[in-house]
Amino acid sequence: MSNTLKISAVLFPGFELLDLFGPLEMFGMLNGIGHPVSITLLAQGGGAVASAQGPRACADVAFGDAPAADILLVPGGQGTRALVKDGGFLAALRGLGATARILASVCTGSALLAKAGLLDGKAATSNKLAFDWATAQSARVRWIRHARWVEDGNVFTSSGVSAGIDMSLALIAHVFDEATARKVARQAEYTWHEDSADDPFATLSA
Amino acid sequence: MSNTLKISAVLFPGFELLDLFGPLEMFGMLNGIGHPVSITLLAQGGGAVASAQGPRACADVAFGDAPAADILLVPGGQGTRALVKDGGFLAALRGLGATARILASVCTGSALLAKAGLLDGKAATSNKLAFDWATAQSARVRWIRHARWVEDGNVFTSSGVSAGIDMSLALIAHVFDEATARKVARQAEYTWHEDSADDPFATLSA
Repeated sequence: MSNTLKISAVLFPGFELLDLFGPLEMFGMLNGIGHPVSITLLAQGGGAVASAQGPRACADVAFGDAPAADILLVPGGQGTRALVKDGGFLAALRGLGATARILASVCTGSALLAKAGLLDGKAATSNKLAFDWATAQSARVRWIRHARWVEDGNVFTSSGVSAGIDMSLALIAHVFDEATARKVARQAEYTWHEDSADDPFATLSA
Repeated sequence: MSNTLKISAVLFPGFELLDLFGPLEMFGMLNGIGHPVSITLLAQGGGAVASAQGPRACADVAFGDAPAADILLVPGGQGTRALVKDGGFLAALRGLGATARILASVCTGSALLAKAGLLDGKAATSNKLAFDWATAQSARVRWIRHARWVEDGNVFTSSGVSAGIDMSLALIAHVFDEATARKVARQAEYTWHEDSADDPFATLSA
């Protein structure tokens, strides 16, 4: 990894706002404490992309022009329902994922990674309100229901929405150390749920 | 208020990602539980606006074309440092705020509201790491240091970044009821800090 931590985040129509911007806020905080970070928003065709909530984010580049990434972040959201059937998108995502050093997903983003074959043989989790649907996307993943997030080697998957913030802090602890993650959380005035198994929402889908 | 809750959120160069998108995620969740919401992103001149963290959001309209809003949300971020000296921006913000039913800010967004005169005579709070700077923007505000958020009539101001999520849930409880706010938090897998005075970060600036 170069001195600058390169984070690429994937946009698609119907992405969930906080899935994307919660982790990017935490990663962005690193810039202020001596760890340079660059964040690039990717969309398959580039341009402005509407979230599930309405607000639009602007892609910096199209998938084809994506720079090498240390971390590839994939959010969830209603838009994943169509994308698990979109072979072109999944093939492109597989290509992006194959070259990233670390894969991270929030919510049903893990359904996309799983369907693209990027979680084969890995342990992973997903949103508790869409758990049965997400896990049906691949039988080659060891799905874990009761987890706020799951870390398996270079793959970090989180449960729904806010859990992505906790996961991204764990990822920062993995890349740097726990003191750095705690410093980021404090600056964001965020009370980090440091225990990945502390998942009060695990029974939502049961 | 019409049947649809109209939320306008202000973009400016150097806005803080989570200040904006944490609350918008919570408001957006209302759509899924029977409370229609529309979200409009405003920027002074429209167009794409870069956050303090880098990623860009796309304004739906320029300030001059802003629709009537039930809630006007103002994020904080590094960009506020320049804007408290920008008379044109402050006058435009004052105009937007004067017609909104409810004002909400996160982090140093309250410095902008205060400087624009929109918090005169109100109790308010701000980011704990920038508290002295923010509160220096107006002596006509009753600033409260130890608070995760402050609710004073139609004005909701929160402390830093993540506190905006807690504040937006309180705002949802104000507009609808507490059960609705708890439902939104649960769907976002967010553990709501329901006590506005529970502020473990209050001493950060001391």
